[in-house]
Amino acid sequence: MSLLYGRQDISTVVWPENSICDRIWLLENVKGATGILAMRTETVDTELLDAAGPSLKAFSTFSVGYEHLPLEELAKRKIKLGYTPDVLTDGVADIAIMLALMASRNVGEATDVVRKGEWPRCPRSPFLFCGPQLSASAMHPSRTAGFIGFGRIAQATLKRLVPFGVTECIYLGNPNTPPNPKADALLARELSVPSIRRVPLSEIAEKSDVVFVLAPGGPETYHIVDEAFLRRMKPTAVLVNVARGTLVDSDTLAKALRERWIWGAGLDVVEGEPVINADHPLVNEPRCIVLPHVGTASTETRQAMAVLAVENVIAGVLGLPIPAEVYLHWIMPVVSA
Amino acid sequence: MSLLYGRQDISTVVWPENSICDRIWLLENVKGATGILAMRTETVDTELLDAAGPSLKAFSTFSVGYEHLPLEELAKRKIKLGYTPDVLTDGVADIAIMLALMASRNVGEATDVVRKGEWPRCPRSPFLFCGPQLSASAMHPSRTAGFIGFGRIAQATLKRLVPFGVTECIYLGNPNTPPNPKADALLARELSVPSIRRVPLSEIAEKSDVVFVLAPGGPETYHIVDEAFLRRMKPTAVLVNVARGTLVDSDTLAKALRERWIWGAGLDVVEGEPVINADHPLVNEPRCIVLPHVGTASTETRQAMAVLAVENVIAGVLGLPIPAEVYLHWIMPVVSA
Repeated sequence: MSLLYGRQDISTVVWPENSICDRIWLLENVKGATGILAMRTETVDTELLDAAGPSLKAFSTFSVGYEHLPLEELAKRKIKLGYTPDVLTDGVADIAIMLALMASRNVGEATDVVRKGEWPRCPRSPFLFCGPQLSASAMHPSRTAGFIGFGRIAQATLKRLVPFGVTECIYLGNPNTPPNPKADALLARELSVPSIRRVPLSEIAEKSDVVFVLAPGGPETYHIVDEAFLRRMKPTAVLVNVARGTLVDSDTLAKALRERWIWGAGLDVVEGEPVINADHPLVNEPRCIVLPHVGTASTETRQAMAVLAVENVIAGVLGLPIPAEVYLHWIMPVVSA
Repeated sequence: MSLLYGRQDISTVVWPENSICDRIWLLENVKGATGILAMRTETVDTELLDAAGPSLKAFSTFSVGYEHLPLEELAKRKIKLGYTPDVLTDGVADIAIMLALMASRNVGEATDVVRKGEWPRCPRSPFLFCGPQLSASAMHPSRTAGFIGFGRIAQATLKRLVPFGVTECIYLGNPNTPPNPKADALLARELSVPSIRRVPLSEIAEKSDVVFVLAPGGPETYHIVDEAFLRRMKPTAVLVNVARGTLVDSDTLAKALRERWIWGAGLDVVEGEPVINADHPLVNEPRCIVLPHVGTASTETRQAMAVLAVENVIAGVLGLPIPAEVYLHWIMPVVSA
């Protein structure tokens, strides 16, 4: 805020409450704006863009994802789009590792026992609460991590998995880019992972001990983790989704957990969020950890995202190059295809 | 069990229930035993050893810790002691990393919101649920991990922290072994950590972003994390205890969390466990994660512990060298000092 309020050349209007911005207030106050900075949860549509009017030159989203925005509308109106890549990579990779560990080691059930006061009466059987170990072991000296999507966050997650003894990394690449085994081999050497390979989706399901969903949202990846995928997974494998809820079929995942097709799941995102109620099937699966989309919610990351989102909107308003811009004229042919 | 039942030269008696072994049953059935294999939670005292009688040659504990056992009594009676080191190192290090992440990133509060069905009504403020980031960031390019105790599990934990960007490792060494800066420098090079140093306890409190308690239990380390230690810690630091509950003063830790001297805590062990009820002050601190001592509870680790504990008791019964023996005649002078 100090970056915005400190400027003499820009006048700033801010929704003053610690809650979702009131729509009527927004439509009223956005009139004649040159730039908009909004959280991922704001509904951005032609109504809002019309309300702002032809003065609007820049839209800055406080997120790395932009699949929730009307990209064609923005492109048509020549509104520049800023986003917050890179600065959130490490914060999200941390949560990916945490969820993989939590889902494997039955943390939902274990913490429940303590909170309900049942620890004193717990049986002392040697395999109580036991789940598969993320780290390599004498029993399982090789560990395979699968990635659906293999961008910055996936690679940062893989880097963190190396000292856990991950021996093989398999990933589903972006269908719009050709395979690049040389780059894979280079990365494998750099990270000291014995093998990194681009494979078909079914192989990720079959071979992975842990699957990380880290591809963008949108129609192209809708329910990429579906019944066929989940039925192919190992019964000891865990699924981690820190990308977008739409990539995973929630109902089928709940069934997969209930019927033990897979061991567990760790989700930072759920289809239909934030309207996830206490009776949601995934919230009620004991082997499913559900977080309210906090992947980027570390003080350091949100601070860096805030600064970048502000820098983006200021540059856009002043007609300067936007520090982190989504080049709409580049991606529109893909999106509209 | 198949290792035991498969032997013709050893007769095996096993408590048949999935619960704590009944004491009266135990005292009756232990008579004339040559070896005992017991979980950490069994009370082992002179009454039990007397009940077994002079035939008892070996005691095998299903744990790496042995501070709960009457070591002097065992030594006096020339009963050999087997334990399960090494095989649990990776399983516990995994939990240490998980608890550090969970305590930093407010996972208790975040999962509660989802389970109570409050996600739909969560405010959208940018710093909601934000905690300090374990990984290094532009705001905090250096990260210091402190270890109270620096044995196998601590070093395995440190190894896992390297790709998170930990730049400095400081540790409290065993007071019975002299400092060894050369070994520290060698380990630093091997793990690619810029600095590993043995320091006084107060420096660990003052400088660490995360403190891992990983020293043995017993009178020498009782309440080593006390009010003085906790008051010296950074307000953004987290405390992780995966060793023994007795090392941390529970009441003062609850106060430290309530009054925000520190950010959060992740505990796999609590003083007085398993008698930790739902109204325990630490169970009720929102920034405290409490697990029911599941550090070794992965299928792979418990399986390996079981095999080693069985191998230990068989070797002891047959008078052969015990694969993992606690040499009581070596440690007794220290223990009785």
